Amino acid sequence: MTATLVERYLAAWNETDADARAKAVALLWTEDGTYTDPMADVAGHEAIAAVIAGAQQMFPGLVFTAGEVDDAHHDVARFTWHLAPEGAAEPLAVGFDVVRLAEDGRIRQVIGFLDKVPA
Amino acid sequence: MTATLVERYLAAWNETDADARAKAVALLWTEDGTYTDPMADVAGHEAIAAVIAGAQQMFPGLVFTAGEVDDAHHDVARFTWHLAPEGAAEPLAVGFDVVRLAEDGRIRQVIGFLDKVPA
Repeated sequence: MTATLVERYLAAWNETDADARAKAVALLWTEDGTYTDPMADVAGHEAIAAVIAGAQQMFPGLVFTAGEVDDAHHDVARFTWHLAPEGAAEPLAVGFDVVRLAEDGRIRQVIGFLDKVPA
Repeated sequence: MTATLVERYLAAWNETDADARAKAVALLWTEDGTYTDPMADVAGHEAIAAVIAGAQQMFPGLVFTAGEVDDAHHDVARFTWHLAPEGAAEPLAVGFDVVRLAEDGRIRQVIGFLDKVPA
């Protein structure tokens, strides 16, 4: 279950088409879902999609892929991700996200931290 | 701020006097505060204090100390902890907790994971 969630989650972060990204966010998060990381603290589909669009503008051409950590219990999960140019050996950034799911399986909240920040 | 929170949090986990533990939990968590780890998923002071008492019974004489990770932004923080006999070189268990604070500075929720489990 977690693998699928992480794949869908990272696919949304990699989706550069605005309409497809908005749809992916709406399928992933509940209407009042939240996203909090060191740079952003927002709620709702539109605001979350805007944060993703902003990250893509800041790191054009870079791709989010799954990291090493992937662990879940009850309605929560934690996983790491890498941000890097496609095929790069070394990630530019590494993040650590904890998510809590709603009863319908969509994300209620994301709490994100950074393990490695771009130099 | 986080260091103090982590210290107070771990002190509650180490408090073996039932009354003092109940008081520490009430000062640390909001009334509807939650605690979720791989073994427990509870809400409210009484239930949280009972989870802590259960852990102490399972690992008598062991002590919780702060680990390497300690990082905070907005109203969230993450930190690791070690569980070990006092003075031991190697922890028996290592945990990873993410907490979200309420506006009054008390804990609204703890989401806990285990990085190392007792063999």
